[in-house]
Amino acid sequence: MNTATTIERPIISTEELLNAWKGHRNLTRKVIEVFPEKDLFSFSVGGMRPFVDLCKEMITVSAGGLKQIITGVIEPFEDAMPQIKEKADLLQAWDEATEQISIYFPQISAEKFHEDINLFGEYKFPVIENIQYFIDNEIHHRAQGYVYLRALGIEPPFFWDRY
Amino acid sequence: MNTATTIERPIISTEELLNAWKGHRNLTRKVIEVFPEKDLFSFSVGGMRPFVDLCKEMITVSAGGLKQIITGVIEPFEDAMPQIKEKADLLQAWDEATEQISIYFPQISAEKFHEDINLFGEYKFPVIENIQYFIDNEIHHRAQGYVYLRALGIEPPFFWDRY
Repeated sequence: MNTATTIERPIISTEELLNAWKGHRNLTRKVIEVFPEKDLFSFSVGGMRPFVDLCKEMITVSAGGLKQIITGVIEPFEDAMPQIKEKADLLQAWDEATEQISIYFPQISAEKFHEDINLFGEYKFPVIENIQYFIDNEIHHRAQGYVYLRALGIEPPFFWDRY
Repeated sequence: MNTATTIERPIISTEELLNAWKGHRNLTRKVIEVFPEKDLFSFSVGGMRPFVDLCKEMITVSAGGLKQIITGVIEPFEDAMPQIKEKADLLQAWDEATEQISIYFPQISAEKFHEDINLFGEYKFPVIENIQYFIDNEIHHRAQGYVYLRALGIEPPFFWDRY
């Protein structure tokens, strides 16, 4: 097991990873903002889920996942999903999740990052791999929102606009 | 500047980052494989580029970018773009890029990762941030390929299938 104290050739610090993640969250928030209210809840391509559902997944996976890492209390994925009825609800849930991430993430000890956790009772990997998955999953689903916006004739934010 | 020797609270090693990247490359290759030949070159949604062009960008950015990091020879983005006429060409270019990444990446010194480089004469950031951008950009454009596949009625590979 690669514990934090024995990381050879370290390349990314805990703070750098958190900052990169927060940059991605800023961009995803901008994508939510440019979605028309109606399309956020109903538009999709090829039978996929509307963007609100992809965002609910991102919120549950990220803030919900970190909460499980910190508290050790594992709950099923569906039970952790927020109720969202309007775009304003989604933006509020998004901001609350960002705040929770900012609080929980720095509480993870160097050792804990490389311990296994069975997240949502389904995903048993080291904490760091679960967190990398949260971020990758956000980039993946946000990019699908980009295609929805293009299909709606709406210009999405620049991919590098993370501020 | 945060040099490798002074990384506080390191979380990811050079090897772990390379392995995560290779996993993503395996998945992107699977996405290319399931695209029908014709649609790879012509299908798109909302006026976006066809998937072959997104893949050409990924190849140029990643293997081309790493080459510039190692050699210090900066060339414009367009000049580094591969010629691709068939799906077989793309798969071959993909595999060659993966091989180049495997060779170049371990040659980057711990210090160099945190030095600025003006990649393609356009993107002046620390090497590590440029590399994180390569990976994020691949996840982003591959996800758009997922939507194209869904719109074509084709099941894409599982997001976690990186082997």
